[in-house]
Amino acid sequence: MILLLGATGYIGQAFARELMRRRWDFRPLSRREVDYSRFETLLECLRSNKPSFVLNAAGFTGRPNVDACETARADTLQGNTLLPITIADACAATGAPWGHVSSGCIYSGAYIVEGERRAIESDLMQPGVRALIERCPSALRGFTEEDEPNFTFRRPPCSFYSGTKALAEEALRKHSNGFLWRLRIPFDEVDEPKNYLGKLLRYARLYDSFNSLSHRGDFVRACLDLWECRAPFGTYNVTNPGFVATRHVVALIQKILKPGRAFEFFASDEEFYRLAARAPRSNCVLDVSKLLATGVKLRPVEDALTEALKNWRREGG
Amino acid sequence: MILLLGATGYIGQAFARELMRRRWDFRPLSRREVDYSRFETLLECLRSNKPSFVLNAAGFTGRPNVDACETARADTLQGNTLLPITIADACAATGAPWGHVSSGCIYSGAYIVEGERRAIESDLMQPGVRALIERCPSALRGFTEEDEPNFTFRRPPCSFYSGTKALAEEALRKHSNGFLWRLRIPFDEVDEPKNYLGKLLRYARLYDSFNSLSHRGDFVRACLDLWECRAPFGTYNVTNPGFVATRHVVALIQKILKPGRAFEFFASDEEFYRLAARAPRSNCVLDVSKLLATGVKLRPVEDALTEALKNWRREGG
Repeated sequence: MILLLGATGYIGQAFARELMRRRWDFRPLSRREVDYSRFETLLECLRSNKPSFVLNAAGFTGRPNVDACETARADTLQGNTLLPITIADACAATGAPWGHVSSGCIYSGAYIVEGERRAIESDLMQPGVRALIERCPSALRGFTEEDEPNFTFRRPPCSFYSGTKALAEEALRKHSNGFLWRLRIPFDEVDEPKNYLGKLLRYARLYDSFNSLSHRGDFVRACLDLWECRAPFGTYNVTNPGFVATRHVVALIQKILKPGRAFEFFASDEEFYRLAARAPRSNCVLDVSKLLATGVKLRPVEDALTEALKNWRREGG
Repeated sequence: MILLLGATGYIGQAFARELMRRRWDFRPLSRREVDYSRFETLLECLRSNKPSFVLNAAGFTGRPNVDACETARADTLQGNTLLPITIADACAATGAPWGHVSSGCIYSGAYIVEGERRAIESDLMQPGVRALIERCPSALRGFTEEDEPNFTFRRPPCSFYSGTKALAEEALRKHSNGFLWRLRIPFDEVDEPKNYLGKLLRYARLYDSFNSLSHRGDFVRACLDLWECRAPFGTYNVTNPGFVATRHVVALIQKILKPGRAFEFFASDEEFYRLAARAPRSNCVLDVSKLLATGVKLRPVEDALTEALKNWRREGG
């Protein structure tokens, strides 16, 4: 039996749906039922339920956005760092393997390869860099799991949210029996506040950047596939292969949804941070070679975006 | 056998000395020998050593002072929050009771009682408040273990250090099998950089405030006494009864050590934070009734200070 923590969150819901679809035996555990943030309670629960796998989809992302984590520091640390440690500890004490929803937002930028030059570039929107990427997309290489995160408390500046996610990775990597699945900017065909496409449709003005993205359903399928195929434990970037600029996603929205309105963009980073954002934002591209090498399949990001927009529907609709 | 973690730190050294003096069987564990920040390693160590008690005196306090914790966020969280959780989890999994060196610096100020009025006052240096305390010391009442910490991530402003210590308490209080021993501004008769009296002698200018203090030897004796007398697990303020103003400690230094120089004070909070400090400082008074009610003895702070100054000596001297 699989134990699912955080089953009511945006990613947890998708795990629950996919587990039902696969008819895998699982139990969603709510904190109201069992306070799994208490080690002793969770340990007892694991000892009596003997799950074959523990899946942690709980986390604190901030509402309405990540800026809320700058002030809600205790809750951000509790949800993103302390809770995952408690879960991994209890799993280690009982021998249960686990999977944790980590995040790619602990990176900023990508590698840029230009002739002999290969360097990490944190600001992909610089005119020269942007022009190079548009002219030659293969000049941009995502971060692999071997690359040290560069948007963390150890490599400031970072958002408080990213700091806590990176610190969890640092702690969980000391454990031998689990998966760290890195999600990036989730989206799918269901319009709701946590869906990236829904956000783009709702924001008054947009911030242009290059990013890797994770289709929510594709993400949870890939995570469960990794476990099913007994891929080695460890860290995996789980994003749809490829990357997109925000302007390109907006062009797809215009073409497919035909919302009949224009989308405005911030003129510069300076304007974005002055008017709209408090915490620095992670924009980054991830390399998914490690995931694909296990045999797990994932659609290219362009296909996943197009399909999501073609099947666009209201929540509950 | 007692397992002692953090045996080389300022407080850990004192625990090791007192344990030797008592001829209690103990083993200091160094991270070089056993990386006890790894849950799996620590669990194995506890399973094979079966300690009767685990004592955690490790922590990250920042060098030269607490301001360093504002930037070294990952290390501060790792040392003060994540490590204590890992230790408490491993102890819970193996049934070993534990003691953790917490800190009183998660409070600011004290209760001020004046006629009908009883309120928390965070700035004891306000002229009116200060005059009242000097006229009527019993108007000042320390925080008890029942009082919610008010210098934490949940109750900003706080220093990053204090935030991490408070978050550890919040997490550790979910465990049933351990002690949280709150230390405040340690000092004793041995001149060294971590000794409060040594700091007062070295700083170019001083910040005046009312505080509770912990004599280092008295602190570790009281902690071990609590365990020896099987006092109930939980949180204990472990400071010498009473409180002192910095100016009063300086007067004792002048009287006993006769350093033959004057001591300057910052004219105001504003001047202190502008010239000397980055992170807000905790100044507070703690109530030790709970500790004393267990029968554990502790000298009044005035006696402990006077004795320390009368026996003042160089490190290693």
